[in-house]
Amino acid sequence: METLSENRAFGGTQGVYKHASTATQCDMTFGLFLPEEARDGPVPVLWYLSGLTCTHDNAMTKAGAQTWAAEQGIALVFPDTSPRGEGVADDDAYDLGQGAGFYVNATQAPWAPHFNMWDYLAEELPALLGEKFAIDLDRQAITGHSMGGHGALTLAMGLPGRFRSVSAFAPICNPSASDWGRKQLTAYLGEDEAVWARHDATLMMRETGFDGPVLIDTGTSDQFIDLLQPEALAQAIAEKRQEATLRLQPGYDHSYFFVSSFMEEHIAFHADALYRD
Amino acid sequence: METLSENRAFGGTQGVYKHASTATQCDMTFGLFLPEEARDGPVPVLWYLSGLTCTHDNAMTKAGAQTWAAEQGIALVFPDTSPRGEGVADDDAYDLGQGAGFYVNATQAPWAPHFNMWDYLAEELPALLGEKFAIDLDRQAITGHSMGGHGALTLAMGLPGRFRSVSAFAPICNPSASDWGRKQLTAYLGEDEAVWARHDATLMMRETGFDGPVLIDTGTSDQFIDLLQPEALAQAIAEKRQEATLRLQPGYDHSYFFVSSFMEEHIAFHADALYRD
Repeated sequence: METLSENRAFGGTQGVYKHASTATQCDMTFGLFLPEEARDGPVPVLWYLSGLTCTHDNAMTKAGAQTWAAEQGIALVFPDTSPRGEGVADDDAYDLGQGAGFYVNATQAPWAPHFNMWDYLAEELPALLGEKFAIDLDRQAITGHSMGGHGALTLAMGLPGRFRSVSAFAPICNPSASDWGRKQLTAYLGEDEAVWARHDATLMMRETGFDGPVLIDTGTSDQFIDLLQPEALAQAIAEKRQEATLRLQPGYDHSYFFVSSFMEEHIAFHADALYRD
Repeated sequence: METLSENRAFGGTQGVYKHASTATQCDMTFGLFLPEEARDGPVPVLWYLSGLTCTHDNAMTKAGAQTWAAEQGIALVFPDTSPRGEGVADDDAYDLGQGAGFYVNATQAPWAPHFNMWDYLAEELPALLGEKFAIDLDRQAITGHSMGGHGALTLAMGLPGRFRSVSAFAPICNPSASDWGRKQLTAYLGEDEAVWARHDATLMMRETGFDGPVLIDTGTSDQFIDLLQPEALAQAIAEKRQEATLRLQPGYDHSYFFVSSFMEEHIAFHADALYRD
């Protein structure tokens, strides 16, 4: 693992690190904020998964999360959204290929064998964090924005017991019924829609739900709201009797201004779960 | 004036606007955050002047200021750092020309007549804000980062009675004795160093000081600290018996992580002055 940068921030350290990933068979870069408390021992961690076109950098510099993570003594990890590099397949569209991994393990050419973001986030990166940093892997929570909200919800439901809480900002809620989803799931996973179900938060909510609290914010003026389909997940959550808070925020759009506006409440929500017991 | 974007943020609105400037004889773009309170009438305003290479956008998206401005009911204005466009002179160096206006009125070719950032910020933009938005021009404060810290300090001292308080993050403190200054002041103002004195915070502090409180933060690990010369301004402030707080922040560097780490305290400092009486 190579340290690309470390900046002192909010009493702790905002680092950026690169490592050779076995899951994605390429170099992967991630951001990690460690609060001051990490000097004295392992701290809880909140994962932040980003949206289409983002790298590890966007939320790290624009979401304003370090302020509140420092206050709560929580680490933040900002993974990349896909494998990258010259040997990695890509597409001219902004919503497929590099920057658009959709948090799945691709089985189809040309995306296999690099596009294994599920394994990278479910197995490889947490193990690396636990080995190299003062991170308490027994206290994990997850959030994300847009495609990253999809990733947060599907990882949380797909890995029972892993995350104590899950939240999302303007998540893609029902990708197998959305233009932000059908194209990508077909490309990465093939035509069999039964395989997609493990990567659709609405379908997973109907099936298994989440064993902890859920918080979801979406702006009523989100320019992509028809692609996000919060109504599908809302219905599934209500039917499942899932412990959850769903909020439609008047006038907010899809930008980081929306994300940062509600970051304090999301981190407080996760802190409640991470510091319980 | 043209609205380029408006995003709901922290209960208020983060806007970006463009207008034809008479001071710089080109189109100028600025960001303006208006808190919720601006719906009910004019609110106080904090100016944020940015550093070398920045546009209006950098601090608007990375400094985390809206969080605290919303809490305090204060507007934030993020001007650009220079005139821009095809008809505007430029230089290959990152620290001269477009993105590096140094907050002066240039008298030398090829920088005159566009590079009039002093007049733009001292006269034209405040008048526009007062005319178009719910901004209370009797309650103004100013801050900035690096070159923008230089701009904030020199505008504050050069316009007595205009700003109730001034703060700066890692300001260029003594440009007439720094490689971040001598080259630019020569280019924009000519060889006569007596003319430079109105644009050097250390020299202005020795001469006139500031008629209000001053707050300055600089990181001890700032990679540019030898160019910033906080020691020169510290000495001048102490000699002048200026009301001021100077802080050297251990381990912090020149980045926005440093700026955002102390933004809450800077905005609270300005709020104290803006809401006095």
